Parts: sequence; C-alpha cells; structure tokens
Amino acid sequence: MKKQGKQTYVLSSGVSIVAAHTLVGTKEKHGPLANYFKDYFTDDTFGQPTFEKAEREMLLTTITEMLKKNKINIDDIDIYIGGDILNQLVTTNYVAEQLQIPFIGAYSACSSVTESIALASALIDGNFCGKILCSACSHFSTAERQYRFPLEFGNQRQAYSQWTVTGAGCMLLSKEDSACPKVTKICFGKVVDYGVLDLANMGAAMAPAAADTLHTFFIDTNTTPTDYDLIATGDLGKLGSDIFRDLLAKDGINLGNNYIDCGHMIFNEDEQCMQGGSGAGCSASVFSGYIYTKLKEKKFKKVLLLATGALMSTTTNQQGDSIPAISHLIMVEA
Amino acid sequence: MKKQGKQTYVLSSGVSIVAAHTLVGTKEKHGPLANYFKDYFTDDTFGQPTFEKAEREMLLTTITEMLKKNKINIDDIDIYIGGDILNQLVTTNYVAEQLQIPFIGAYSACSSVTESIALASALIDGNFCGKILCSACSHFSTAERQYRFPLEFGNQRQAYSQWTVTGAGCMLLSKEDSACPKVTKICFGKVVDYGVLDLANMGAAMAPAAADTLHTFFIDTNTTPTDYDLIATGDLGKLGSDIFRDLLAKDGINLGNNYIDCGHMIFNEDEQCMQGGSGAGCSASVFSGYIYTKLKEKKFKKVLLLATGALMSTTTNQQGDSIPAISHLIMVEA
Repeated sequence: MKKQGKQTYVLSSGVSIVAAHTLVGTKEKHGPLANYFKDYFTDDTFGQPTFEKAEREMLLTTITEMLKKNKINIDDIDIYIGGDILNQLVTTNYVAEQLQIPFIGAYSACSSVTESIALASALIDGNFCGKILCSACSHFSTAERQYRFPLEFGNQRQAYSQWTVTGAGCMLLSKEDSACPKVTKICFGKVVDYGVLDLANMGAAMAPAAADTLHTFFIDTNTTPTDYDLIATGDLGKLGSDIFRDLLAKDGINLGNNYIDCGHMIFNEDEQCMQGGSGAGCSASVFSGYIYTKLKEKKFKKVLLLATGALMSTTTNQQGDSIPAISHLIMVEA
Repeated sequence: MKKQGKQTYVLSSGVSIVAAHTLVGTKEKHGPLANYFKDYFTDDTFGQPTFEKAEREMLLTTITEMLKKNKINIDDIDIYIGGDILNQLVTTNYVAEQLQIPFIGAYSACSSVTESIALASALIDGNFCGKILCSACSHFSTAERQYRFPLEFGNQRQAYSQWTVTGAGCMLLSKEDSACPKVTKICFGKVVDYGVLDLANMGAAMAPAAADTLHTFFIDTNTTPTDYDLIATGDLGKLGSDIFRDLLAKDGINLGNNYIDCGHMIFNEDEQCMQGGSGAGCSASVFSGYIYTKLKEKKFKKVLLLATGALMSTTTNQQGDSIPAISHLIMVEA
C-alpha cells in the first residue's frame, strides 16, 4: 500500500469484500430498491420491548444471517469494526458483546460504514488480519427521539428534512484473492464546517465535507467523474446532493449522470420522507444490498462510495454551535 | 507485523511515540502526579462560556502545545485518530475541524486512547502513514451532567464511585526510527459484560474486560506479569483494580507490585474522589504525563497499558441493560 497525493491510499492488491448482507424496515422495503432488499422486518419493533433493543436485534440478525448464508464461522474473523449513530454506539457495542471477537468502535456518524471499511482494508492490506467484519446501522425510531423530537410529539417535518433509515448493513472483508468486489483505494476525510445550524438540514451540513473529500481524491488520483461507473454519496438527500453537485461544479467538476445519493434513492417520493433517507444504515444498506449486488454482477466496475456524517450532538446544537461534517471515501472495483 | 496467538499483533520494528503532552485541571494538578503534569488550567471553564467548549479548548491547546514544543508542522501529520466520552465525540470532532487534517473517530469510551494508539501503530507499521496524531480527553463537568446528574443537583457520591478526570493527553506516533519509546505489540479487546447495572460502579463493570484482555495477551505472548516493569490499567479505581487483581488471581495470575491503575493514582485520598479517577482523559493524561516521561528516562523499560471503557449509554441503563466494557492493550518499550 502506498500514499497517493495528500489523503488517498492505494491498497497493494485490493481487499476482497467476500460477503455483504442487509436487513431493512418496512418503509425501506416499499421503496425503489425493494428488489435489492431481500430480507426485511414487517414490524419495526423486531419483537423487542424497546426500539433500542430492536435496532440491536436488527444488526445482530443481519450479521448472523450473513455468516450463516456464507458458511462463515465467527471465530475465523479476526476483528469486528463498526459504528452506529446512537450515543456511545450502544447498538454496535451490545452486538459486539454477543459476537465475542475483538472489537474496534468507529464513529463518524453516518460515515461510519466507509470509516469501518477503510480501516478494515488498511489492517488487512498491512497484513495484520485475514478477515474483518464491518457494519453500520440506524433505526428511525431511536434516532428521531435521540436527535430531534419524541415520536409521540408528532411534529411537522420540515420540507428540507430527511427520514432516518431503519436498516443495517454488514460486510466481510478478506485478504483472500477472490472474484469478489475489491476495495482498491481509500481516502479519509477532513472535518468541514460551513456553518449550518439547523439539525433538520443535514444534507446542507454534510455536502461540503463530501465535496472536499471527492475533490481531494480526484486531485490525488488525477481522475475525473467519467473514470467511474458510479459515484455514490451516503445520505445527502435530494437537497444535499444538489448542493454537492453545485459545490463541485464551482470547482470545475461536472458529476454528470453517474452520480447517485443513497439517501435520495432509498424512498419513493410518495412516502413523505421529504429529501430522502439519512442515518448510518442508509449508505450501509444501499451499499450492501444494491451497489454490492451490481458490482458482483459486473454491472458496475468501478465505484466510489462516500458515506457522509454530521458530527454534532444535541448539546452542541443547543449551545449554538454549527454542524461539522465528514466524509470518508472507498473505491471498490468489480 | 504478524499475529501472535488469538488477539495480539506484533509490530515489525516498533512505532515510535516521538512526542506526548498533557494538560489537566486544578484537582489533577493537586494530586500525587503534580510533578508530571507541568501544564494545567487554574479555572475549569478554560475561559469558555460552556464546559463543553472548555473541554474542546483544553484538547486543542494540548495538541497545539505539543506541536509547538516539538516544532512539528500540523501539515506533516497524515491522520488524526482520537475520541472522547461526550455524545457523538463532539470534543474531538470540533478539534479535528480546527486541525484540518484527515480524521478518524475512535470510540471505546475510556479505552479510546489505547484504541487510537493501537490503530495508529497498525497504520504506520503497515506503511500507510508516516505520522499520526492520537488523543483522548474528558472533563468532569461535561461528563457528570451527561452520564449522571446535573452539577447543580449536588448529589451525594456513592463510596464506590469515581471522579471524572479533567484532562487531555495527546501523542505523536511516527515510523521514524528514534530513541523514543516504541509501541511494539497491540491487543484489541473483546466486549465483556458481567451484569453490573450501577452507573456509579464503573470499576466493577470494567475490571472483567481488562482481565480478559490481559489474560489473553499473556497466553498469546507466553509471558507473565514479571516480564514487565509496569502494567497499568486505565480507570478501574481502587475497587475496580482490586476486582481486576482478584479475577486474574483466580486464573492463576499474580500481578504483584508492578501493577498500577491510572485512576487509583491520579488523586489524593483527601480529595474526596472516592475510588479515584475515571474518564478517557484519565489514562490519556497519566500515560502522556507520567508513564511516557518514565519511559523516556528509561525508568520503565517495558510497559503494558490497558485503558478501560464502559460502553453503556444513559438510555440503555434506564432500560435496564447492564454495562458492557472493553479494554484495548498496547505494549510500549523504552
């Protein structure tokens, strides 16, 4: 592996994503990606007494189903790296307790999935580990009440707001040379803050961070958008992805038709999710369900995934601080 | 680098900790380690309007002072890895925004300092990076009100409770071969939960995780406590470190006189901190201030540091869940 430019790292021979799995809620299953979300729950409580326990059950089931389907023994996995958006990453921590393998907690809000995959790729490429499990997830009902309002309050949603995805995605990365999609480059983002203060306007807060990472990556690798089949941001939503396009256009970069946003494409317009989906489970489920499948089918050959995270807390927001954001990038090739 | 046993990784040639710095509050400055805490603030607000902003100012000052004293240019550092114990790691996120270098958020509560150092060591040893900045911190007044009670409530403290350390520690890791202390082995811990339910009894919740990691490390490396000058846990406090000793003794491991706990040694008994210090800043400041200095002076030659983290949230606690914990280990040699 070696550094390319300022922030990009090229992996020696690519790290295989040998398996991926996702599990979503009912709203996500009714969206445009229904065919790619094979497994889903019809009840967002997942049979649990609290939504926090439901989120945990969802993540644990996603991981155990992936291991079962791919006949992987948990004890053959060296490390588990993952994160979620609940305070203290409780969903992932409690699932890690169930799995009983070494665990590294990664937090960059909704960019946790690419942070985890990038870290795992680096550890495998550096010959530390053979196999690393990665995951990220979110649940509408736990996130809404933690970050915004109690569900019972039934507040009116702003036109520029997004809807937290109920979904979990996990992937198994391995050093084995396989025909599976491979992570070939990674780029860790910087924290960028354009001064957005509104907790409902996540897309606007995160777009500058994604633009910063992607622009840096293009300079580092001397490439342009047309060099990729697909460039996907995590959860900027419709408004955020428009801002993202505009910011890059101002720098002379035209994203063209190969650009999608996972948040923008996960819900139908009639689902009243305003600008689209958000949450760490958004890019994690769209990557595990849709993008990974297309990569395996060779429909996509070269993909850039930039999950996007807003890094504030409710406390900093109440104290008048603006919302810093970050976006970590991974390049995956079929 | 290669894997040794189940969870331990041996670094090829050791990763140098070329600089370390710490900044603490007044209570810590009045403790037994006063001589090792050269820089401190006499006012826990650090001149800021909120304690959250004070914690941020403390961390930023710690890092900028270390860079200044060691004549290091921030742009020469490849990546910043760090974490704290506030929701969404806001202290570290906002400081990362100031530093403007690529950032990886690490969360394992009060074990974040060894998680960060272990990750940084792996990335450097794998030839990804030349220089990585690590940090961890905590502040009594932000942590107490987030995890337990509002300060104004003035609650009576349980005899088995601990006092969150107001302190920040940072280190610069480098691949350059220097005479500085070197990280030579790392061991990522598993999440362990013995069923402790009391948020004030962190030591009891975390001791089993530290015992699990240390026991595994001894088996992996075929060593015993006498092979090290110092074995330091992060913030188990007096009670927690007694439980830690007992758990290991039951497994036939006698820790002897080389064992200390950073939380147990940071405050004087007359400071009414009950079992001692806690918080991510506890092991971070004791390592950066005391242990690192002793390693540089060759007073310690071979040290094991096991920072210890309790991974619950107030929500999971209120929902009746017990407290899972984790402990990541680093071995540092003079």
